[in-house]
Formats: sequence, structure tokens, C-alpha cells
Amino acid sequence: MNEKTGILLLGHGSTRPHNKELVENVAKMIAEQNNVIVQIAFLNMDKPDLKDGLESFKGTDIDKIVALPLFLAHGVHTLEDIPKELNLDDDKKAVVTINGKNVEVLYAEPLGADPRIAEIAYSRAEEALAR
Amino acid sequence: MNEKTGILLLGHGSTRPHNKELVENVAKMIAEQNNVIVQIAFLNMDKPDLKDGLESFKGTDIDKIVALPLFLAHGVHTLEDIPKELNLDDDKKAVVTINGKNVEVLYAEPLGADPRIAEIAYSRAEEALAR
Repeated sequence: MNEKTGILLLGHGSTRPHNKELVENVAKMIAEQNNVIVQIAFLNMDKPDLKDGLESFKGTDIDKIVALPLFLAHGVHTLEDIPKELNLDDDKKAVVTINGKNVEVLYAEPLGADPRIAEIAYSRAEEALAR
Repeated sequence: MNEKTGILLLGHGSTRPHNKELVENVAKMIAEQNNVIVQIAFLNMDKPDLKDGLESFKGTDIDKIVALPLFLAHGVHTLEDIPKELNLDDDKKAVVTINGKNVEVLYAEPLGADPRIAEIAYSRAEEALAR
């Protein structure tokens, strides 16, 4: 990934603060570890929404955005709601205008059943036993 | 964790198959990597529900169950719905009767903003760019 690519990290949103904090913290980690611009947006309840999230790249030099759902698995949100809000075509792509130029939007997969998810979950079980 | 402790991996549930597949796959990974009995249960839509999930330990030799929410962050489901369904006390503990003996139920934290979550998410962004 080069410095012309931005990541829009997408959260579910919640009436509680925890989902927004998660998305903010993970966005910070990704940005620090990879020297890439990461903005955030939320499907429900929290702000910014997806449209404002895309617009938050205004003033940057990016020519491509990866919309990255911070969800564990596909579901109605990732398969219907987000593609609709981002106007994705059948190839899971869209084009938006930022700073007067066309910027391609690509859509990433959710986290999925990665072995590291199993590792983290098991750590949480061990921590509960140690309390 | 010893062989007397079981894990009940808790999923959100979905009208789509992906959440259940995620929970099944992560449960399998945890069981294989750690030689522990892992059962699954769902809050909504999918089966078994939490009560049936607890009962699925019948016939095993466990004397403790860690209820482990496979959620990224706390929210209404992890803070209200699951504790209520599990009858957790203020210490996030409960006791259920399985095989005629008392089994303690402990409640683990959700995954949270672990650096490995940021790593996996970034991999998904790179995969989207490589498509």
C-alpha cells in the first residue's frame, strides 16, 4: 500500500461508547504500523457516517480508498447496507470525487475466522479465569 | 486452563450463515490449539441459544465454564443481554447445574482493540488492493 491509498475503517456504531473507541484505536494502530492515512466512519448511531467519512479525505493527496469493514463476519450490514451506502458496483468498487478528482473506492472483506482471532479469544478466556 | 474447564463461545447470530460459520470455525481453532472443550451458542436468530449452549456440556466432566463473547467490543449485547440470559451476578459469575453438580460460569471480555485485530484488518485492505 502506498501513501496515495487511504483506508476508511467502518464500524457498526453503538449507543454505547465502546464500538467507537474500538474503531478509533484500531484505526490509530493501522496508521502507526503502516504509515497510511486511516479515517473512520459508522453505519449507525455514531458519527461520522459513511458519506462524511469519505469526505474526510478532502485535503489529502490520496487517489484510492479502501473501505474496510471492522466486522468479524459478513452479514446484512456488510453485504447490503455498506455496499448500498457506498454505491458499490458488482465488482465491489465505486468512484467518488474528492478534491475535484476521481478517487476509486475498493471494498475489503471483514476480519473472518483468522487464527489470530482464536488466539485473542482464548486469551480473554484465560484472563477471565485469572480474575 | 485445564481439561475441567469448558468454553462457551457466544456469537451474535444472523439471518445470514456467516456469523454461525465464524463462531463454528473459531470454536474449532480454539479447541484444536488448546485441547479444551468448546461449545457454541447464539444470542439471536441462530441456534443453540445460551441456555441450550450451557446444557450442551452435559455428559462432559467440566466443573467450570467460561462464557466467551465473540464480539469485537462491548455494547448492549455484551453488557446487558448476555449477563441477563446467563443470570450473572455483580461479579460477572453464575452457577448452573450440569450432570447434577454445580458448575461455575465466568464471563470473559470481548476481543477488544488488540494489535492483532489491526494486523488482520490491514491484511484485508491489502487483499482488496490485490484483487
